[in-house]
Amino acid sequence: MIIGIDVGGTGIKHGLVSEEGQLFHFNTVATEAWKGPDHVIDRIAFCIQNLRDISHAESYEVYGIGIGFPGPLNPKSGLILNAPNMPGFVNIPLRDRIRERFNIPTTLENDANAAVYGEWWCGSGKGSQNMIGLTLGTGVGGGIILHGRLYSGVDGTAGEMGHMTVEPDGFLCNCGNRGCLETLASGTSLVRRAREALNNGARSILTEMVGNDLTRLTPKMVHDAQLQGDELGDQIMNETARYLGIAIANLINLFNPEVVSLAGGVANAGDDLFNPLREEVKKRAFERPARTARIVQAVLTETAGTIGAAGVACSNR
Amino acid sequence: MIIGIDVGGTGIKHGLVSEEGQLFHFNTVATEAWKGPDHVIDRIAFCIQNLRDISHAESYEVYGIGIGFPGPLNPKSGLILNAPNMPGFVNIPLRDRIRERFNIPTTLENDANAAVYGEWWCGSGKGSQNMIGLTLGTGVGGGIILHGRLYSGVDGTAGEMGHMTVEPDGFLCNCGNRGCLETLASGTSLVRRAREALNNGARSILTEMVGNDLTRLTPKMVHDAQLQGDELGDQIMNETARYLGIAIANLINLFNPEVVSLAGGVANAGDDLFNPLREEVKKRAFERPARTARIVQAVLTETAGTIGAAGVACSNR
Repeated sequence: MIIGIDVGGTGIKHGLVSEEGQLFHFNTVATEAWKGPDHVIDRIAFCIQNLRDISHAESYEVYGIGIGFPGPLNPKSGLILNAPNMPGFVNIPLRDRIRERFNIPTTLENDANAAVYGEWWCGSGKGSQNMIGLTLGTGVGGGIILHGRLYSGVDGTAGEMGHMTVEPDGFLCNCGNRGCLETLASGTSLVRRAREALNNGARSILTEMVGNDLTRLTPKMVHDAQLQGDELGDQIMNETARYLGIAIANLINLFNPEVVSLAGGVANAGDDLFNPLREEVKKRAFERPARTARIVQAVLTETAGTIGAAGVACSNR
Repeated sequence: MIIGIDVGGTGIKHGLVSEEGQLFHFNTVATEAWKGPDHVIDRIAFCIQNLRDISHAESYEVYGIGIGFPGPLNPKSGLILNAPNMPGFVNIPLRDRIRERFNIPTTLENDANAAVYGEWWCGSGKGSQNMIGLTLGTGVGGGIILHGRLYSGVDGTAGEMGHMTVEPDGFLCNCGNRGCLETLASGTSLVRRAREALNNGARSILTEMVGNDLTRLTPKMVHDAQLQGDELGDQIMNETARYLGIAIANLINLFNPEVVSLAGGVANAGDDLFNPLREEVKKRAFERPARTARIVQAVLTETAGTIGAAGVACSNR
């Protein structure tokens, strides 16, 4: 068994993962990130100890620990460089501190990469050699699997699919660039565009849905409005699908992957997103790689990061 | 020694290449492509026989043959699928026909990939692990080197950097998509945009340079006009640099490479292209990978394909 740990800003998801990717004893504890690195490391150690006790009771051997953590971090050195959502995590040798406590081989991977690895290993990418994973959440993150391994580039920063320019003079992104995919396909961007349109006088059932309080707008409401025939909802969802289609066509022309897997809240729109998206890809990508690439919704949701963190540890054995 | 063969529509470049990538007895013969596959294969065999005779006279052993050929082709099966510029080359098992004639291990690779491999092995990418190569010629081609090997995807179609969308509603590309990098950064596109502007009444010294005959316009003239302070020349060159910068920033965010190497006629503009291009990349890519990636002009020109074809054979030993 391998212990998989998926550390987020609010919760630490953890479980025991078999060599075949089966997950047992999946659980979550609060991260309490505001209490700083020493406390968070104690919380992680607490999860590991629990899982070790369970393995012991069930006579499993634990031969590895895999940790997924918000970046930027360096998987090779095991150092958290500077995690914006984790106060105090600046140059913290997380991997080595865990390894020394338990004396078990430990790996560290960016949380987005770990989730994509999990989805490739045990989810929609199962059996494929090459997969591109995108997560459409607050931001747009992603990971790249080539020849069955995470591809992370020279500095470990590869796979920033959310920051491909898809509209050269578009909206200013948090990263400082204009027109990133993230500004047109994240959940946040759906809400922003709906709010802007409403503030500019667009008429939509969204106004009613939020009881005239635009701060209550969610990405899901935009899709719900589309389902109810609302013009603004439909327009924003189609625009999102179009730009996702542009980005995915680029990725297909570049990587010629077997699978493109979309996770995160925005992907829950299902066919309303995937159908126009696939049409856009068909228009833009080369025929051969476009025929090869299955564009699908991710199937693991909550557990992808935990399974993937363990999978990375397993592949590094 | 390995025999390197770089087959183009007009010439077959060939030479002997050492394991360290040194090129000897480099030469070119006419392809005479219009005479069909059997004749072209005889021409290739003629080059190989010559090089084998030379090696024999100089007491070198030839242990491999590497062929670069215009695609689409399948490197794994050694089959030319359908080469638009090589009449009759439809489902031709070129690799096996050469291997059977000489009884020497033979590899086949797409010519653009072979050239990028050569540039990585012995040119601007020397010593790096990861390199993205772009050729700005009639079209925009490219190749991807990851962990010291060509990356070609599931079907062998990866690396179509010229067909990334950089302007969603842009000019219609030969591939059927709109706003591909190729429509804004190929030599052909420089000429097209200059001609369009002049036909729409723009004033420029280009009119004089071509003696009022716009069919004589070349990409180099657009740069020459810029050098002479011409507004239209300057505008087209800066636009080219901007879109190349957008595409390269995307590639840097995706691949986090050590080197981005630009070959082909348009890259000969040197600093007039590279300076604004690097500025654009700085604005758009993440700081860390942008600092890592050297964006440089390719140094091998005529010989990259021959050296690279041999290098691919060498790496497959």
